[in-house]
Amino acid sequence: MKFVTYLDTNGKPRPGVMKEDKVADLSSLGFEDVLSIIRAGKAGIEKAAAAPATIENAKLAAPLANPPRIFGIGLNYHDHAIESNMAIPKTPVVFMKLACGIIGPGQAIELPSISTQPDYEAEFAIVIGKGGRNITDNWRDHIFGYTILNDVSARDVQLATSQWTLGKSFPTFAPMGPAIVTADEIADPHALDVKLEIDGELLQNSNTRELIFKAPELLRYISSITPLEPGDIISTGTPAGVGLGRTPQRWLKPGETVAIEIAGLGRLVNPVVAGV
Amino acid sequence: MKFVTYLDTNGKPRPGVMKEDKVADLSSLGFEDVLSIIRAGKAGIEKAAAAPATIENAKLAAPLANPPRIFGIGLNYHDHAIESNMAIPKTPVVFMKLACGIIGPGQAIELPSISTQPDYEAEFAIVIGKGGRNITDNWRDHIFGYTILNDVSARDVQLATSQWTLGKSFPTFAPMGPAIVTADEIADPHALDVKLEIDGELLQNSNTRELIFKAPELLRYISSITPLEPGDIISTGTPAGVGLGRTPQRWLKPGETVAIEIAGLGRLVNPVVAGV
Repeated sequence: MKFVTYLDTNGKPRPGVMKEDKVADLSSLGFEDVLSIIRAGKAGIEKAAAAPATIENAKLAAPLANPPRIFGIGLNYHDHAIESNMAIPKTPVVFMKLACGIIGPGQAIELPSISTQPDYEAEFAIVIGKGGRNITDNWRDHIFGYTILNDVSARDVQLATSQWTLGKSFPTFAPMGPAIVTADEIADPHALDVKLEIDGELLQNSNTRELIFKAPELLRYISSITPLEPGDIISTGTPAGVGLGRTPQRWLKPGETVAIEIAGLGRLVNPVVAGV
Repeated sequence: MKFVTYLDTNGKPRPGVMKEDKVADLSSLGFEDVLSIIRAGKAGIEKAAAAPATIENAKLAAPLANPPRIFGIGLNYHDHAIESNMAIPKTPVVFMKLACGIIGPGQAIELPSISTQPDYEAEFAIVIGKGGRNITDNWRDHIFGYTILNDVSARDVQLATSQWTLGKSFPTFAPMGPAIVTADEIADPHALDVKLEIDGELLQNSNTRELIFKAPELLRYISSITPLEPGDIISTGTPAGVGLGRTPQRWLKPGETVAIEIAGLGRLVNPVVAGV
């Protein structure tokens, strides 16, 4: 199933599930948001499966605007670590990306005036279902689904110190969606093409099989330290081709449109505008 | 005023305010927790001021168990940067510490079995009241109060990669309290003695005047990137004397008791035990 957040006729976000090209409303079933469906576990999915899809031409927002945490994984594709002039990690490099940057499909990425190096990062993101600590062999039981995340990064701010969080946490720096596709629809999460285009130019083109640390290892490592919670997002890192690693380097510019496509997860399109 | 969370006779946490040695219950005024008081702004403080203090021998929990975010500041005392063999930063070094590690006064710091280098860090912590972006001259208007935070850190996990968050985010790694002292009671937040003792041995002994980046600069910098929210915590960093920087290095051991004292904020005492 494809869980979404859509805007009702008053512009209020409501949880829903996309069936073919129509959306079934889930707020009328008592769910406040997609997070409450994730927290409800199997019962949430079963209720959603039975809901009638009647809403046409739904305008989508970010599928999950309020994840408890977004864990970002750095340097998790060999070719991206090399283009960043950084060593191939032996341990997952985990940083936090603040959830206040989340926007949905079609919403604008606003470039902050204090950065001259805004960059894109196409990422395959895992959405945790059942929480837990020390998750090992049964890792699939803990994944609710998958989505696309653009880990937008102001490189000058990110790399001004050793710690990356703030440079990745400006408002609008976490475009997400268009949907959370449940895990049962993705037979192998480590065989998905990942592509990013700007204005039709292909800039990133890889496959999740190239991930250094894959889903089971990421869940195992993070949950060996801190319990994972329902709705937590693990954004698994970006492949080569980001603006930082290109010759010459290229930065996001107002007027451009960024489109990320991951096989089975759809296409996330966001325009770029000048911000404050 | 000194805002606290206390445990009622059923062990349920409730918000309160400490007046001399008694606690006034604030849950009966409709406040679910201290975060809801912070969010209520002046009205919350006025209601608390009028509440009668009747509860004797209250058992305290962490004053704020659910801050939206904990921003940690790295290498923010000259002497600590030097003992860590790291450069004096020109920009605040900001990382996230996960709030799931918060415990209160008297609660045990549980040493994870996967770390051989658990360490302490005495820190002066700012609690944000009014949120906002681009906070500058009026920074005092945005501070609700101050508290003590022990930024417990598993050095081997923290330094296994470039990003520090996970090594500082095991369960129980964020002892906090005993109270949040409102800003009006601290005439100068940059003139407070900070001391940490283990079993009576003085291991850290500094003063917040030694902070490289002080409160106005920290609020300005972080809020220039991401809007601050009511209840956000900025833990301002630790002075010299941590176990990592000593010769020989010394690590926390089960059976020890860590006590942090900051002038005007009280004393935060936590025993250390072996965890899983």
